[in-house]
Amino acid sequence: MSVEIERKFLVRSNAWKTLGTTVSMRQGYLSTHADRTVRVRVEGKTATLTIKGRSHGFSRGEWEYPIPLDEADALLSELCERPLIEKTRTCVTHEGMLWEIDEFFGDNQGLVVAEIELESEAQTFALPDWIGEEVTGDVRYFNASLLRHPFTRW
Amino acid sequence: MSVEIERKFLVRSNAWKTLGTTVSMRQGYLSTHADRTVRVRVEGKTATLTIKGRSHGFSRGEWEYPIPLDEADALLSELCERPLIEKTRTCVTHEGMLWEIDEFFGDNQGLVVAEIELESEAQTFALPDWIGEEVTGDVRYFNASLLRHPFTRW
Repeated sequence: MSVEIERKFLVRSNAWKTLGTTVSMRQGYLSTHADRTVRVRVEGKTATLTIKGRSHGFSRGEWEYPIPLDEADALLSELCERPLIEKTRTCVTHEGMLWEIDEFFGDNQGLVVAEIELESEAQTFALPDWIGEEVTGDVRYFNASLLRHPFTRW
Repeated sequence: MSVEIERKFLVRSNAWKTLGTTVSMRQGYLSTHADRTVRVRVEGKTATLTIKGRSHGFSRGEWEYPIPLDEADALLSELCERPLIEKTRTCVTHEGMLWEIDEFFGDNQGLVVAEIELESEAQTFALPDWIGEEVTGDVRYFNASLLRHPFTRW
């Protein structure tokens, strides 16, 4: 297990779009329970099964296992809850820190969130000028919640 | 993925107890949804994460991944639904076929079921004389169901 310490923000411009590299992701859930999410994700040619526990502040327990791509495709098409989440992830480095900006499509079209992973909850970091309001801990922005309450219906 | 083709029976005597080898199992669930169960199992020094789809007749899709023992212990103690399932499994060979007899403890004390895995739904096999009524497809006997509706409360 690792403990994932993350903070999440909205963005206020598209300035990040030209600053990084972008990959497509397709993911679905075998459990969306707040105490135990189980996610299947395909990112390019790799696939993972990721288990996350309940959030405490900025932190959350995480267990991740690589799985064969064809098995991930089968789990996504046959077993995962509907709808699947489709998004692109753009990685941008700003003052030595990595930001991951997720742009959602489908039922969550229009939603863009930026995440930064930290070493400790107290760690400070510089905010790029395209970063907007912080939404860490707002359950509406959890990917597992976006299945049941997609952004286009907020 | 493999397709698991299994038939399940009650037992009508303890004659099987002296015929095989027995291991202890501890397992819990990250999802007990009928369309997608996610099980964590510790059996001796090995641990697995197993995903199963919905049952169709005697068959069910199954994806299994080995995981580190300490991570399985953490998932069982921190994340899995309560209660955990505790049982022993005794493997007995009868006329060339392997029978797995699960004896349950805790909230399911008193329940004993015997399973046989087949190559095809049409495969025939000899019934040992300690085998009782068939319960294949009876959801009450699914391990994931035994969490919510344990045998001692039937």
